[in-house]
Amino acid sequence: MRKGDDTRQAILERAAGLASQLGLGGITIGALAEELDLSKSGLFAHFRSKEALQAQVLEYTAARFTEIVLRPALAAPRGEPRLRALFNRWRRWPEECGLPGGCLFVQAAVELDDQPGPARDLLVKQQRDLLEVLATVARSGVNEGHFRRDLDPEQLAFELYGLMLAWHHASRLMRDPRADARLATAFEGLLARARRTQK
Amino acid sequence: MRKGDDTRQAILERAAGLASQLGLGGITIGALAEELDLSKSGLFAHFRSKEALQAQVLEYTAARFTEIVLRPALAAPRGEPRLRALFNRWRRWPEECGLPGGCLFVQAAVELDDQPGPARDLLVKQQRDLLEVLATVARSGVNEGHFRRDLDPEQLAFELYGLMLAWHHASRLMRDPRADARLATAFEGLLARARRTQK
Repeated sequence: MRKGDDTRQAILERAAGLASQLGLGGITIGALAEELDLSKSGLFAHFRSKEALQAQVLEYTAARFTEIVLRPALAAPRGEPRLRALFNRWRRWPEECGLPGGCLFVQAAVELDDQPGPARDLLVKQQRDLLEVLATVARSGVNEGHFRRDLDPEQLAFELYGLMLAWHHASRLMRDPRADARLATAFEGLLARARRTQK
Repeated sequence: MRKGDDTRQAILERAAGLASQLGLGGITIGALAEELDLSKSGLFAHFRSKEALQAQVLEYTAARFTEIVLRPALAAPRGEPRLRALFNRWRRWPEECGLPGGCLFVQAAVELDDQPGPARDLLVKQQRDLLEVLATVARSGVNEGHFRRDLDPEQLAFELYGLMLAWHHASRLMRDPRADARLATAFEGLLARARRTQK
């Protein structure tokens, strides 16, 4: 890897950390330059604008999510084992991503929903991709005969995403010691309903 | 109501609107003074500090949530009808609260989770109160014989909160036209499971 690439990665890692705590809007070129001991003009050489930096932070973080959560989970056998692998990896993401403020996407979703622009467009695309992966894995459970034939995979994706958001809320804001147990119970319920014939 | 109270209400209303879009950190005394045609010193007379203003914006918005969502819902018959009334009122909250950026509490939860201080402490207390109301209403469904005896009311509260967060995400960020339908389906599923005997 060339030195320029190393520097770029170091900048993105630091910027993602700041964004997880303060929001994408909290990444300032000045603060980054100071923390990384780079000149502002050096930073501008890597990222032409604050908007470009925000978008690249989202891309950098999504690539890490793919590497840490999605790729290993998609190596599990299709159907229910794959959905469970995905869930188990996802639960460890807030620790493994190394971002001090927890999941950057939860932060960015709330921050950008009222802010039209390229960063919002990118985030919507990323979140749509994630929901599609969830639905596709759920669908593979139907095809493998693990889940009931009338399961709505997109509904499962919606509900699973909601559980992860409730867990984020319970663990990060509320510091509820039962947050992990609540999430695990809810996920087992979701799986049980996916298996069971609908009444 | 005295003139001072009217002014205070007008300030809080405007500040809550700003916070729903830009976050509590986006409320600046300068911006508010300009929008409301008040002097900065006049604003400081109402709110000694930015932190005090943030806390009062949370209190003002929680009082509106009580008035628009909780009080009328708690007038419905105990048990399942009350839980349904609460859900139906809550679904209309983003419109009825009149905040341009949608639910301030979803915004504030993500913004404040890494920011220790009085505003965070107040928000945690408010959110705990809300989760307790949800659990209490669910418990009344058990006592009335609407829900199964081994229902965990706090688990139901956790899962219901997650559905509302998934709906917020789907409607505000993703602008998914099926968001309302997904939420309704998920809520009916939650109720059906609360009624059904656990296997």
